[in-house]
Amino acid sequence: MRFTSEQRLDDGVVERAFTLGDIPGILWTPASASASAPVPLILLGHPALGLNRMYPRLLARAQGCAAAGFATATIELPGCGDRPRWPAAEQARADLRRALQAGEPVGDEIIDALILPLVEKSVPEWQTALDALLAQPEIGGPVGYSGGVISIGVRLAVVEPRIVAAGLFAGSFVPRAMFDEARRVTIPLHVLLQWDDEGNDRQAALDLFDAFGSKEKTLLASMGGHTGVPQSAGEHAGAFFVRHLS
Amino acid sequence: MRFTSEQRLDDGVVERAFTLGDIPGILWTPASASASAPVPLILLGHPALGLNRMYPRLLARAQGCAAAGFATATIELPGCGDRPRWPAAEQARADLRRALQAGEPVGDEIIDALILPLVEKSVPEWQTALDALLAQPEIGGPVGYSGGVISIGVRLAVVEPRIVAAGLFAGSFVPRAMFDEARRVTIPLHVLLQWDDEGNDRQAALDLFDAFGSKEKTLLASMGGHTGVPQSAGEHAGAFFVRHLS
Repeated sequence: MRFTSEQRLDDGVVERAFTLGDIPGILWTPASASASAPVPLILLGHPALGLNRMYPRLLARAQGCAAAGFATATIELPGCGDRPRWPAAEQARADLRRALQAGEPVGDEIIDALILPLVEKSVPEWQTALDALLAQPEIGGPVGYSGGVISIGVRLAVVEPRIVAAGLFAGSFVPRAMFDEARRVTIPLHVLLQWDDEGNDRQAALDLFDAFGSKEKTLLASMGGHTGVPQSAGEHAGAFFVRHLS
Repeated sequence: MRFTSEQRLDDGVVERAFTLGDIPGILWTPASASASAPVPLILLGHPALGLNRMYPRLLARAQGCAAAGFATATIELPGCGDRPRWPAAEQARADLRRALQAGEPVGDEIIDALILPLVEKSVPEWQTALDALLAQPEIGGPVGYSGGVISIGVRLAVVEPRIVAAGLFAGSFVPRAMFDEARRVTIPLHVLLQWDDEGNDRQAALDLFDAFGSKEKTLLASMGGHTGVPQSAGEHAGAFFVRHLS
């Protein structure tokens, strides 16, 4: 992991851009974090729209987490931002747009082509990032995962034992194969659902919540579309991580 | 309203039993409440099991609300505790028990017979209690409704303009007629659902949440049965009332 820039924000949070091989990422650490007082870490998941476009929302989430004493980090997803595209994903995105614009149901083959390669490629990258992040002296543990793509969060919750709690955003289509994986998740979960999310299947989100094997899981559904998550929902998610990571 | 007993609890909360005609009730006021600093009020709804049996859980909720600066009050439901039974309700309860024990679906006619008369009889009583409670010098407003029976909360939210926010517990069967009323609810709502509530229809609860006309509504689903609401869910509901009543 190579840090490429560093700035201290108004609230004392230190924001550092980094690269991990050819993957760009950002690490935010609260003012309180030090080698003698390492802090827990939350991996910030995000939709496949590119880090630059997501930056304002990621920054707001990072600052909220820092106020609760958590470091946060995120990496660019494969095929997003300046990272190389692959044709199948581009085709799947085009097929999705076409289906949504035509008001047609989004078929399983589109969802699989869109999401499954993203999960396959990104999860090992998140794990490599985790190795590097936990090697930083001011970052301890435990580790949480927060946000979408929900299928990435599900896979990480299954394969990565260092992640002890996940706050998942049910705002993306879910391949059928992920329902089986969901049954193998046992860590505490807090799932956010926007009731009228235009790019999401509400019933699939409820079915996925039902499928999770975790004994402790909560679902918080709020009114509004994909980007309309109310501030109170963010506070609820924050309280979830305070309970499980602090 | 006639007060019949008064005691100060360890946390300074004043608990007063009262009667309103032949209806028993309890009023809890936080230590901070006075005529010069009247506090908001939350009406504590509860299942039709009688105030005596519900007292420990009601007290815990009242003390939580008092810590947030709210007075709380509750009244005995018609046909419960020492209040006169009516044969149709007794019959409906027996039919419900029989259906549940036999593992049969609970028919609409049982749900209607069980719930609709309770709504018809109890809502005017809650309104009369509200008149009397708001006449107390240390109780101001605004007013919220918290808990079940959810159909009582729905009707109150429709007909009682003094109630400005409701935290509803989706833990009882809902007559079909209430779905139409739910569309007329416009106040902010926070709905608690226990995902594996043994005496509840999960899909009906989700449909009811969908039907509510309120622009601001949240659903918090937690794992566990009817009485297994986790502490964190109570804290979320508390934050909802702080946002809307403080």
